[in-house]
Amino acid sequence: MKKTKQIEKNAKTVNKYLKSKLKGNPKKLYDAAGHLIVNGGKRLRPYMVIRSCQILGGNSSNAMPAASAVEMVHNFTLVHDDIMDNDEMRHGVPTVHKKFGMPIAILAGDVLFSKAFQVITDSKLSPIAVTQLVSRLAKGCVDVCEGQLLDVKMAEEGRIPTQSDYITMVSKKTAALFDVSCAMGAICATDKDNDISNLSSFGRNLGIAFQITDDLIGVMGDPKITKKPVGNDLREGKKSLPILMAIKSAKGNDKKIILKAFGNSKISKNELNKAVEVIRSLNIEENVRKQALKYADKAEKSLSKYSGPAKEELISLLDFVVKRSV
Amino acid sequence: MKKTKQIEKNAKTVNKYLKSKLKGNPKKLYDAAGHLIVNGGKRLRPYMVIRSCQILGGNSSNAMPAASAVEMVHNFTLVHDDIMDNDEMRHGVPTVHKKFGMPIAILAGDVLFSKAFQVITDSKLSPIAVTQLVSRLAKGCVDVCEGQLLDVKMAEEGRIPTQSDYITMVSKKTAALFDVSCAMGAICATDKDNDISNLSSFGRNLGIAFQITDDLIGVMGDPKITKKPVGNDLREGKKSLPILMAIKSAKGNDKKIILKAFGNSKISKNELNKAVEVIRSLNIEENVRKQALKYADKAEKSLSKYSGPAKEELISLLDFVVKRSV
Repeated sequence: MKKTKQIEKNAKTVNKYLKSKLKGNPKKLYDAAGHLIVNGGKRLRPYMVIRSCQILGGNSSNAMPAASAVEMVHNFTLVHDDIMDNDEMRHGVPTVHKKFGMPIAILAGDVLFSKAFQVITDSKLSPIAVTQLVSRLAKGCVDVCEGQLLDVKMAEEGRIPTQSDYITMVSKKTAALFDVSCAMGAICATDKDNDISNLSSFGRNLGIAFQITDDLIGVMGDPKITKKPVGNDLREGKKSLPILMAIKSAKGNDKKIILKAFGNSKISKNELNKAVEVIRSLNIEENVRKQALKYADKAEKSLSKYSGPAKEELISLLDFVVKRSV
Repeated sequence: MKKTKQIEKNAKTVNKYLKSKLKGNPKKLYDAAGHLIVNGGKRLRPYMVIRSCQILGGNSSNAMPAASAVEMVHNFTLVHDDIMDNDEMRHGVPTVHKKFGMPIAILAGDVLFSKAFQVITDSKLSPIAVTQLVSRLAKGCVDVCEGQLLDVKMAEEGRIPTQSDYITMVSKKTAALFDVSCAMGAICATDKDNDISNLSSFGRNLGIAFQITDDLIGVMGDPKITKKPVGNDLREGKKSLPILMAIKSAKGNDKKIILKAFGNSKISKNELNKAVEVIRSLNIEENVRKQALKYADKAEKSLSKYSGPAKEELISLLDFVVKRSV
């Protein structure tokens, strides 16, 4: 696939840049900070930064500091998230706190965060552009923190959230950084508010579609691809869109089967499969995909006035995000 | 005392500004982020930002965003530090993770960090000044992370560090943020590299003197003031300057008494007092104070070409920092 090749090529360039910035003393701190980065990742956010710069006629090398900064911030959230959730594995390797211990993992996250702002100020853009980049990134980080707290609160509360609660949460927790990625790419190319706003909107709506699709995969996904059992998010009691739609639309015995599996770590494999079958029979996949497509459409409309290869690649990424198979 | 009144007056203004910036949804996140701030603190770093701006003829209101940013970063390090050390109390109140739980405490630290960079970009300074402020602050945060890891490593290692290891560690862990405070204050007033560098040097050397004195108090300090038993840092096995100087200079039975107390949580009060008496008899206090004064002299020299009330107040703060009674 041409698109995947483009993403891979971009990832290599970004990785090289990241490696050059994430070194220093004590070495252990930077080993911990780079642990997840060297062990994989598609660098989707840097890809979006660079394409968003190019769609507006900018030079991709101008966008490299911003692209790296966004990836550092993304990794900082992963490192701290894994501590908060006490997760042991990510992308097939031990999480940073499992490998390096909790204190170093907290510091690894913090140094990624610090370096993100440092690389932006090292860029060769005008001070006005740098100030705008810092402002966007800082605001995005605030949004991510707020979104993560909404997620923690939602998990703690007894009630099943509404679809609107869910969208508010993912808009901040996930979509904010996609929004910021595209806006920052745009700022590296232009000072026109209208263009920056169009790219920001593209990123935000793509981000929401991304998370909805991710959550669908978390329930119905093929264990061979997800490396997690079918119905994993259901068993973990994750209050994601497919699950809250399933709980809302199921009736009688169906509802009982789903609720029995929801957040029940001791459920048998058989009963978990049965619950996923019920969700399938309720056409949840189709309805969830419709929601993701709604946001993908909004994203596409934000780019209607642009053309060229960078646009094609952003639209191709959007298609990939919402059409990923479960 | 005139100086204390000035610090108190400044703290009130800074607190008001901080309160206006640290609000949002979910409220719980901002309650956690503001928890240590509303429960005390002298706001020494913001005071240094503002006085460093004034000593160069700048307007203090221009320095308020930078002053608040530094305090937010300082509080972010306290919140994450308390998690790493699993401390339960700070300034007489429960630490953030004890009160709000670990996940919210991690996020509270992260949001303080994010807001610090956001407030700087909200300032009315020129984009060139804002870029310099962000660059200094980000570099300072990297230093603090590196210094904290050096501290963790030093604690884990079996060997007693040298004085030079100790100075390297505190230069990053503690002094970096004092350095950044004064440099940022200077940037709010001028674009002259020489002045910025003088203030940066003042802050760094004051910071080292501050930490040395703090560590002296951690061993010999009056329990009524420190709210900790005499010899607390010795019992906790902290590898601070007074302790490593005491271990180095003690001989025979004296050395045995100190090493028995060092890092021994089960030591009797009597034996701990005896170890502190031995340290007193070795004249460690005088020698440590000499070291602190050496850095205080360097700090004072950095300001030799300036005059006026802001200089007097910075020198007065320097005196306070090194002459604090144990």
